[in-house]
Amino acid sequence: MQTDDAARDRLMGRRVLITGGLGFIGSTLAIRLVEAGALVTLIDSLVPEYGGNIHNVAGIADRVRINISDVRDPFSFAHLVRDQEVLFNLAGQTSHMDSMTDPKTDLDINCAAQLSILEACRRHNPGVRLVFASTRQIYGRPRYLPVNEEHPLQPVDVNGVNKLAGENYHILYQQVHGIPTTVLRLTNVIGPRMRIRDARQTFVGIWIRNLIEGKPIEVWGGSQLRDLLDVEDCVDAFLMAAVNPAAVGQIYNVGSPESISLADLGREVVAANGGGEIITREYPADRKRIDIGDYCTDATKIAAEIGWTARTPLSRTLARCIDYYRAQIAHYT
Amino acid sequence: MQTDDAARDRLMGRRVLITGGLGFIGSTLAIRLVEAGALVTLIDSLVPEYGGNIHNVAGIADRVRINISDVRDPFSFAHLVRDQEVLFNLAGQTSHMDSMTDPKTDLDINCAAQLSILEACRRHNPGVRLVFASTRQIYGRPRYLPVNEEHPLQPVDVNGVNKLAGENYHILYQQVHGIPTTVLRLTNVIGPRMRIRDARQTFVGIWIRNLIEGKPIEVWGGSQLRDLLDVEDCVDAFLMAAVNPAAVGQIYNVGSPESISLADLGREVVAANGGGEIITREYPADRKRIDIGDYCTDATKIAAEIGWTARTPLSRTLARCIDYYRAQIAHYT
Repeated sequence: MQTDDAARDRLMGRRVLITGGLGFIGSTLAIRLVEAGALVTLIDSLVPEYGGNIHNVAGIADRVRINISDVRDPFSFAHLVRDQEVLFNLAGQTSHMDSMTDPKTDLDINCAAQLSILEACRRHNPGVRLVFASTRQIYGRPRYLPVNEEHPLQPVDVNGVNKLAGENYHILYQQVHGIPTTVLRLTNVIGPRMRIRDARQTFVGIWIRNLIEGKPIEVWGGSQLRDLLDVEDCVDAFLMAAVNPAAVGQIYNVGSPESISLADLGREVVAANGGGEIITREYPADRKRIDIGDYCTDATKIAAEIGWTARTPLSRTLARCIDYYRAQIAHYT
Repeated sequence: MQTDDAARDRLMGRRVLITGGLGFIGSTLAIRLVEAGALVTLIDSLVPEYGGNIHNVAGIADRVRINISDVRDPFSFAHLVRDQEVLFNLAGQTSHMDSMTDPKTDLDINCAAQLSILEACRRHNPGVRLVFASTRQIYGRPRYLPVNEEHPLQPVDVNGVNKLAGENYHILYQQVHGIPTTVLRLTNVIGPRMRIRDARQTFVGIWIRNLIEGKPIEVWGGSQLRDLLDVEDCVDAFLMAAVNPAAVGQIYNVGSPESISLADLGREVVAANGGGEIITREYPADRKRIDIGDYCTDATKIAAEIGWTARTPLSRTLARCIDYYRAQIAHYT
């Protein structure tokens, strides 16, 4: 990890709130914060289709405060945000397909709840240092690669439209109301604690589940480029943004400079598992319509401004995933 | 007006639905559609703070169907949209200041209701020809002038964020679900039937009311450039977009190539009134934070693709406004 001693010192004893705190990235962040001596409260709704899983914090359950509540409920959040010093705002609906079949729920979580979170901060805690988890989905189909922060924003699904609105609120509340926010646009993040029950959070999750269960994995298309980011690298970006005043009001891409085709990624995952079968399928029509094509992150801005870069080789991330889920599969399926 | 006979012929006998149909632009559009022989249904909630005013359709009340309902109610809309051939979707919350003090209401109307309107179209009438009223507000503070459709989108208030999401849904539902939508990004539109009770719809409204009532008008700042568009020109853009297949899936700026400073505009309005007092004030701090600075529209795309241009000189628009409100002031204050 690249969060240096000084960064960890700045988190010691700090009151930190994480929405989506039992989810994949949220729980990994919580573990690192507890290790750094922060006083951590986790908010999670544990909606079965989302990423929250109480097992994610099994190792730190006695050292964090867990508050089961939904960010769509403005009342509980208004209470919980008071007196917090840092807010990592990660709660979200992440499934692109679900956003097309149930757009209203996606709007309620990724759009309306975000506005209500920011209103609660404005009223009750306008000085809270807030880092928001946005997504590369808001760029839509890339017009050029790698994609930097100046790339036009043209989402190709309801999830992207709503996440963009959620991001815009965060920037607006910094500019107009002075709440110190930072936006991180995340690429595909993978690692231990991700959802593997299905592809709602990441397709890599269901691949790993299938391989461990001895089933084939399905690669749709195969030529599309993606960049994968290790969750520990991602957590570094959140922590480094939170402690660096230069990040206030900024939007940063957070991703890896290395891109890989889905076909090659499938082979790498199979190799990490020590074997497995790959089935290549045509891209299903309903997903093709909302597919973004090739993607690769330009993360030079965050490197230049706060010194973060992706560091973990993909092979190591995949090996950690396989090890973790082999041991823990019962808690994730 | 520039809607030619062929365009009017294409509207004869067509079933047309207008949301915000008792509002400023909606009612002006309704009058033109009735004259062209269309079968017009108007939806309006008549929320007192918005633009709806039953007097706006006084001259055509017996030739349109008026349905008082709110686009936030998905059930009534799902019924009303069936069997319609054209939908002009104009219902919206327009006050920038109100969007900052009551962001949730702005979200409900400009964001959630738009998604629900599109879902109703998808389920019950996916072939309806839909023209959506967006706004130049989504560009935020211009980085260059005049502003074309490729300008970055960085809204500076909650209204802009939500209108952008509303616009994005309309483009998305065309691309993914095939609903034939067109988006018009409107500049400051003025003319008879605009709200003049206050500045919630346009600051020109309250200026005209004050002058007619013998009160001074307030110019805030004064150097900011704006372009003003006559409502009849604006209605031409809606009608021409609706009948032209080339407009499907397109986003067009709709504005005037002539910009004017607020100070000069104040003098023009006073001249149109035959006199009046102007008070120049510092820009109030709470509005300055969400001000967009100078604005001027590049509308060359819509001119090239469907032949629309702004045609009415500002002096004529202002003279029509003064005449209209002198005769009708009791219905608008």
